[in-house]
Amino acid sequence: MSLIDLHEDRLFPSDSRVRSLARHLYDTVRDLPIISPHGHTDPSWFAENEPFPNPAALLITPDHYVFRMLYSQGIPLEALGVPKQPRAGGPEIERNPRKVWRLFAENYHLFHGTPSRMWHDWVYSEVFGLTETLSADTADLYFDTIDAKLKQDDFRPRALFDRYNIEIIATTEDPLDPLVHHSKLKDDGWGKKVITAFRPDNVLDPEYEGFADNIARLGEITGCDTTTYQGYLDALMDRRAYFKQHGATSSDHGHPTATTADLARFEAETLFAKVTAGDFSTDEAEIFRGHMLVEMARMSLEDGLVMQIHPGSFRNHNQGVFERFGRDKGADIPTRTDYVAALQPLLSRYGNEPNLSVILFTLDESVYSRELAPLAGHYPVLKLGPAWWFHDSPEGMRRFREQTTETAGFYNTVGFNDDTRAFLSIPARHDVARRMDCGFLARLVAEHRMLEEDAAQVAQDLAYNLAKAAYRL
Amino acid sequence: MSLIDLHEDRLFPSDSRVRSLARHLYDTVRDLPIISPHGHTDPSWFAENEPFPNPAALLITPDHYVFRMLYSQGIPLEALGVPKQPRAGGPEIERNPRKVWRLFAENYHLFHGTPSRMWHDWVYSEVFGLTETLSADTADLYFDTIDAKLKQDDFRPRALFDRYNIEIIATTEDPLDPLVHHSKLKDDGWGKKVITAFRPDNVLDPEYEGFADNIARLGEITGCDTTTYQGYLDALMDRRAYFKQHGATSSDHGHPTATTADLARFEAETLFAKVTAGDFSTDEAEIFRGHMLVEMARMSLEDGLVMQIHPGSFRNHNQGVFERFGRDKGADIPTRTDYVAALQPLLSRYGNEPNLSVILFTLDESVYSRELAPLAGHYPVLKLGPAWWFHDSPEGMRRFREQTTETAGFYNTVGFNDDTRAFLSIPARHDVARRMDCGFLARLVAEHRMLEEDAAQVAQDLAYNLAKAAYRL
Amino acid sequence: MSLIDLHEDRLFPSDSRVRSLARHLYDTVRDLPIISPHGHTDPSWFAENEPFPNPAALLITPDHYVFRMLYSQGIPLEALGVPKQPRAGGPEIERNPRKVWRLFAENYHLFHGTPSRMWHDWVYSEVFGLTETLSADTADLYFDTIDAKLKQDDFRPRALFDRYNIEIIATTEDPLDPLVHHSKLKDDGWGKKVITAFRPDNVLDPEYEGFADNIARLGEITGCDTTTYQGYLDALMDRRAYFKQHGATSSDHGHPTATTADLARFEAETLFAKVTAGDFSTDEAEIFRGHMLVEMARMSLEDGLVMQIHPGSFRNHNQGVFERFGRDKGADIPTRTDYVAALQPLLSRYGNEPNLSVILFTLDESVYSRELAPLAGHYPVLKLGPAWWFHDSPEGMRRFREQTTETAGFYNTVGFNDDTRAFLSIPARHDVARRMDCGFLARLVAEHRMLEEDAAQVAQDLAYNLAKAAYRL
Repeated sequence: MSLIDLHEDRLFPSDSRVRSLARHLYDTVRDLPIISPHGHTDPSWFAENEPFPNPAALLITPDHYVFRMLYSQGIPLEALGVPKQPRAGGPEIERNPRKVWRLFAENYHLFHGTPSRMWHDWVYSEVFGLTETLSADTADLYFDTIDAKLKQDDFRPRALFDRYNIEIIATTEDPLDPLVHHSKLKDDGWGKKVITAFRPDNVLDPEYEGFADNIARLGEITGCDTTTYQGYLDALMDRRAYFKQHGATSSDHGHPTATTADLARFEAETLFAKVTAGDFSTDEAEIFRGHMLVEMARMSLEDGLVMQIHPGSFRNHNQGVFERFGRDKGADIPTRTDYVAALQPLLSRYGNEPNLSVILFTLDESVYSRELAPLAGHYPVLKLGPAWWFHDSPEGMRRFREQTTETAGFYNTVGFNDDTRAFLSIPARHDVARRMDCGFLARLVAEHRMLEEDAAQVAQDLAYNLAKAAYRL
Repeated sequence: MSLIDLHEDRLFPSDSRVRSLARHLYDTVRDLPIISPHGHTDPSWFAENEPFPNPAALLITPDHYVFRMLYSQGIPLEALGVPKQPRAGGPEIERNPRKVWRLFAENYHLFHGTPSRMWHDWVYSEVFGLTETLSADTADLYFDTIDAKLKQDDFRPRALFDRYNIEIIATTEDPLDPLVHHSKLKDDGWGKKVITAFRPDNVLDPEYEGFADNIARLGEITGCDTTTYQGYLDALMDRRAYFKQHGATSSDHGHPTATTADLARFEAETLFAKVTAGDFSTDEAEIFRGHMLVEMARMSLEDGLVMQIHPGSFRNHNQGVFERFGRDKGADIPTRTDYVAALQPLLSRYGNEPNLSVILFTLDESVYSRELAPLAGHYPVLKLGPAWWFHDSPEGMRRFREQTTETAGFYNTVGFNDDTRAFLSIPARHDVARRMDCGFLARLVAEHRMLEEDAAQVAQDLAYNLAKAAYRL
Repeated sequence: MSLIDLHEDRLFPSDSRVRSLARHLYDTVRDLPIISPHGHTDPSWFAENEPFPNPAALLITPDHYVFRMLYSQGIPLEALGVPKQPRAGGPEIERNPRKVWRLFAENYHLFHGTPSRMWHDWVYSEVFGLTETLSADTADLYFDTIDAKLKQDDFRPRALFDRYNIEIIATTEDPLDPLVHHSKLKDDGWGKKVITAFRPDNVLDPEYEGFADNIARLGEITGCDTTTYQGYLDALMDRRAYFKQHGATSSDHGHPTATTADLARFEAETLFAKVTAGDFSTDEAEIFRGHMLVEMARMSLEDGLVMQIHPGSFRNHNQGVFERFGRDKGADIPTRTDYVAALQPLLSRYGNEPNLSVILFTLDESVYSRELAPLAGHYPVLKLGPAWWFHDSPEGMRRFREQTTETAGFYNTVGFNDDTRAFLSIPARHDVARRMDCGFLARLVAEHRMLEEDAAQVAQDLAYNLAKAAYRL
């Protein structure tokens, strides 16, 4: 039997001088409220405030970090209870959450050295009061303990939200979403705590499933004639305004690349006609997406939404898994991503605008020092989003600071994004970021590259102030 | 005069807490037998068990790490005794091994900070009992000491094999090789200790020297009609079976890129006709190689050979050196390598097969966190080979773990490959890997990211168990 | 109020064992003379020896590291006194240097964690004797103190040159430069201390502003008929000889990529006719530049100038800034850069020449371990320039050594380049390099990867000997 190790000095460098400095810095930020400006929690949780379901349905089945690792070691997704597409073949889905949980517990060693392990251990220990580590032996103890607590009122979403000291959280919705949960949240006085963000990929990307239908639906919702380019732009502007009414301060764009394009009006109209007719090449799809990023920047200048660009994921790389299980099943793989040439059309048009703010993310760490830090260290509109997705990890965060700070400084970055649908782990994720940032600052202080008093100010900014300012919260 | 420093704590981080943890972990793995599933030792050494020749011929002339560094500083390859191609011009080759040795000794400072230096120092100290460092002053002492020992029976290949505590070693042969040494080894009862691996580049790559002749020879050896595509496939399957009889558990593929292609049968037949006729473009050669990787995967599904893909080397970059000295003269240079799009055809076809195993290597470290760890952390067929070639070094190994573990974990990796023809240094190379892995694990423990007991288990797995399992030994 | 922290152990790793070793190594190199073989100081400073102007004009307005960071945070370049192009619109330029200085001081926190901060702090403390950190509160104290000192004779350029213990410095001039300052320096007996370097981009790059005019002017200066290719080559050779008379030992080539090309004579002549006529595609411009690098290598073989290749910057990325403020305004952004295929034409032709020396630089750190170290660890003509531009920083220098040493060793590198026009900070920059190298060596010693006595020799070489040898000084 072994015990979960949530040591108070976890993640700090081992060197005693650095560790001591890190601990002092961390003590000043550990209890700051959580600002979560970018994430994927389900607004219905906070709107309805129903109890979360069983441990497997809460912690395993929806977490692609968890099931991708298990799948990589030969465990079928069906055995983990991951739902299949209609009419997909293969084995039966496991319906017994306890069995799913046991399978996870037996394979918990696969997560050694991963952030998933740290996030889960924190949840088990801090939220559910478990002390022994998860294993085959403790699987049932875990299942029963968690299952019982989830039925208690103080484990409902709003209670956890408050216990977690979350000041504000943004969810992510697409333009076709009616935002009913956000409306209810507003009515309940939670409108300042849970806001939406505008994610229009499904109406900007001609290669998105159902694109043409989505455009038509966009027209119905807004009353704009989306068979014309002008009507389409009007509809987007209309939905942006609607999202702003539901708290949105940002848009988010998850494109395959960072390509931007600044088409002349008639070119854009012609291309819009082609992509909505379904008559386009992959190059034309790419140009249309790129052009629409420039249009989004223009609209941001008007309405003030902060623009987030999240490029570089090759979605649904595993065709077999996609056919049987659909999107978001751990098979999105990062690709090499260019920003320098790709962003030039957007930056030539709007790069020096004082009132525009564009936050760049990457899945390609080789661009931190080569492209992103030099770009953000020059263009007034650009800021760097934190280490993202696979790089939202201790080593990933360390590389982000080591490779961006010397050129872009701290003040062209925007604090932390948890970017997660795993609501229970949100404090653990922010805690990892705070610890890693304090560890990085502590090293700078120990190496006499920064004064301790300055590091303390920066630590506050990274943990709280920068996110509020960058996302205009 | 200075002494060789093989300190018991070498390669461990300096921080006393981490170092102490590393030492404890290392103590549990230092004496484990060596599993060497991928390498380039000469099977005739073990089959014939003749004494190794003189120090220069053993340690300098065949080691491209050594002579490339000396060459880079202006020392002609001829002066190092490197054999030339027939009819190549230029200076005479140095025939006196003592003179070659002295030249190396005088320039030993060039290797400061390199793994070659560590491997050589270990060999000098641990194998030959030398205590002073190599230099111009000690060159003759070294030469005489090593030369004398090499004549002793306990320095013959089999004696060193046993002294080195090697449990199993794989050599690498091409399909045209008759495997006579492996046959003799089998007869001598060494068949479980020295096995072959199937490396068919010379009959899969249309751009390989003598490709068409090789295909013809493949037909002669197997009795298959390799003028037809089906006969060619049959011949490959036949040789795979023959290699399996000589112990092979893996195939190995050293292609310029990771491109895979899944051609329709008639396309493959047409392309086969073109490439064997010598009538093909570089693009067609690339597609043929890529298609044959998918065929190899199909055969692996049938016969169980583990498939290794080693892409990304621009072979024989230095045309002058290639013309005068031929292949493998230190002029192979890594190139930027894509895996995400390149592997999709293979993975679409076989990526979810429970019985296939594909081990990926890279010379492009930028793909560790961006491509390889995400791919291996998802696809059941994929595992990550260790840091390879230029990256088979302390810093390279550290980067490999830092950049892959958080996404792929430890259990999608396969232990260490020494990948060497430098037989004498094999224990030193495995020792470097064990020390670096223990140092990495120790840091995770010291930073409370892993329990010490879990780290001890992982250390065992990395040093021994994973290689045995991944290579089906 | 806080004090500048120029701790004697700054930049050394915090671990006490490593730090102690680093300090010992550093003590042996800290006072070595400065060799500055590549930089952008203004030769008129040393020739005329006039006092430097006010603090803002000396330390802010010409330093693109400084104003790019301030600009990235929304401060207009006009407010920093950066001069505009004739007829450019926008706000008035701030003419009061004290106001510019105050703006900088108020925003000094933006530079936390950047090398600019370390360089500036050193200048303030060591050169001007200031003790409190720069801030809004101390802005006027700083301005007045610095302004007063700059008027003293012992703060004139030659006095600082001697106080800085600079043995030799190279400036950079283009072939059209008459080198009048260098002539005067020679007459004054300073010809061995301040030398020029030959930077012919403006007559080799068809896309350079005024290229055709520059070629014509080159003809006038040399008396060669630069309307013909042969006359053009003759003119270049003539100017190289003239630069050598003014001390030049190197040429420098700042191309967008590392492309080289080895055209047949008639191809080169035809292309020369096209590019000088202004009738060429971007591909043709690229090939012409690439071909001229091979021609430069040929000329270097004749005249012995060491060739520096500085590729990979996307110049003037910000079109708005370029139009209003011109070149070199912090908007040059690094791009992904290939060396392996790009350099092959040059290396196929001249890669094994004993008397040629080519120093490679990069802005793309991903090539250190993948391309540059393997190339330099093999080709006799190649050496690696130090971490450059955005990577000329503590973390950048650390990555350079960690990622190149194991494959290329120390002796295929060339010491430090400050590469700066910020004369006052030159000792601070060399000091950072010496400290970082000593810290790196100290870690190798502490990890028993290198003997302390060997590290001491390497430290000397990195700080002084290698630069002298590599640049043939």
